[in-house]
Amino acid sequence: MRFVTSENNPTLKLIRRLRTRKGRDRTGCYLVEGPKLLWEALNNRADIIHAVFCEEGEGEGALGQSLGEGFEAEGRGREALARALGGAGADVLATEPKLFGRLADAESPQGVLAVVRKPEPASGGGDWLILDRVQEPGNIGALMRTAAAAGFDAVITVKGSGDVYAPKAVRASAGAVFRMGARQAGDAAEAAEMARSGGRLIVAADPVGSRSIYETDLTGLLALVIGNEGGGLSPEFRRVGALMARIPMPGGTESLNAAAAAAVIMFEAVRQRGMGAE
Amino acid sequence: MRFVTSENNPTLKLIRRLRTRKGRDRTGCYLVEGPKLLWEALNNRADIIHAVFCEEGEGEGALGQSLGEGFEAEGRGREALARALGGAGADVLATEPKLFGRLADAESPQGVLAVVRKPEPASGGGDWLILDRVQEPGNIGALMRTAAAAGFDAVITVKGSGDVYAPKAVRASAGAVFRMGARQAGDAAEAAEMARSGGRLIVAADPVGSRSIYETDLTGLLALVIGNEGGGLSPEFRRVGALMARIPMPGGTESLNAAAAAAVIMFEAVRQRGMGAE
Repeated sequence: MRFVTSENNPTLKLIRRLRTRKGRDRTGCYLVEGPKLLWEALNNRADIIHAVFCEEGEGEGALGQSLGEGFEAEGRGREALARALGGAGADVLATEPKLFGRLADAESPQGVLAVVRKPEPASGGGDWLILDRVQEPGNIGALMRTAAAAGFDAVITVKGSGDVYAPKAVRASAGAVFRMGARQAGDAAEAAEMARSGGRLIVAADPVGSRSIYETDLTGLLALVIGNEGGGLSPEFRRVGALMARIPMPGGTESLNAAAAAAVIMFEAVRQRGMGAE
Repeated sequence: MRFVTSENNPTLKLIRRLRTRKGRDRTGCYLVEGPKLLWEALNNRADIIHAVFCEEGEGEGALGQSLGEGFEAEGRGREALARALGGAGADVLATEPKLFGRLADAESPQGVLAVVRKPEPASGGGDWLILDRVQEPGNIGALMRTAAAAGFDAVITVKGSGDVYAPKAVRASAGAVFRMGARQAGDAAEAAEMARSGGRLIVAADPVGSRSIYETDLTGLLALVIGNEGGGLSPEFRRVGALMARIPMPGGTESLNAAAAAAVIMFEAVRQRGMGAE
């Protein structure tokens, strides 16, 4: 493990670039912070290029910052993680707390972060989540987490959406970002065309839709569209004949937020497919 | 509408107290910010005691701050809201932007806020959401929003939970806080006893539970327990025989966040009860 003391080290410079979307778009890389997510990245064979640990003092026998008691107790602590990262081909560095603190996006960066190369654009044949200008990275990550749990295999972002690989989205995804494919669409029509050509039924939640999700056949391949937090769905999705399905709400005038609505629809598909029986 | 220019005005002092939990607990009141939530409060006959508008300059003909074009266009703008609040018995004040800015909790306080009296502790006979030391106000509000949409009628907070009436929870609830009852329980055992004595089946999500939610009868009265963000469920709930139900996840090693898991279970109950057919 090399010890780095200069702010101008190229890896540290790269990491600082990756905190912006422009930096991530240009380099094709993104940041992963903390031991929990890094173990997930390793288990999912993400392409980890660099890893940087926070370390007190330089050289052999230096005091490494603990990654937290839980990880040490499970044999997944600092030494084990550094070995696993090196074994997976990552260039492993350490730096002092002052420099490390300037790299991290999270308020408590948990002693380690890494540079991961984005996978190739998704081309798989499973269910898709389409984000139609969803902005907030925390929402994006939470939606990916739910989609991955429901067995969906890719997320398509319509231009104007937030970045799937933003640090906050990566954290909120709880590792789903390593398991799901991702792909961008120039506009709503292109996303709909991509979904259709793969044989997917395009479904969106609509509070005033005429058909209930419980009366809708969700057993085939799906593309579930989630609209912008304030503005809702792009009109293009209605125009191409997306199925507008209603979640029945006994609570009357209430509405669901996007993450809750997505969870209800995706798991209604799980139920209809009989995956609930096992 | 009286115009207030002193920081020491008793209403402004009360409002500043309500930003803390201690202030809310001692006074039995909470804050509601922005025109959208205030119209919701009015429509739900919340007990609004004081309202304060942000106003440029003093006296007749002073330039009131617009509440946003949407509200003005719908005839629900500043004048209409002030009249409705007065008609509902609220004491309506205005103050200058500098003083108003010190009152609000939200980053963009949207020109108006109000002091609302908490309702009596919930004693209704419907389905309950039990928050078992859920901390984050945004999560609490989102959970209440989903529960209200599913027709649940009260939220029970086990001691150690965040405050249902925190400004961020009120905002995230999107008005559900005005429609749902709330009640505190000293500990998990007391919450379980309260739920049981009302004839409710106590259900909690458990990733390794032996029974799937799709094989569980959720048609009777329910009390759904959501555990702490990091620590999960209090052991008391297992001890009293809460039904630990699993949400089947085709995505393998994935998990759902608390808000998504709650949405899936509450709407599976809606489906089983045939409320989806209408």
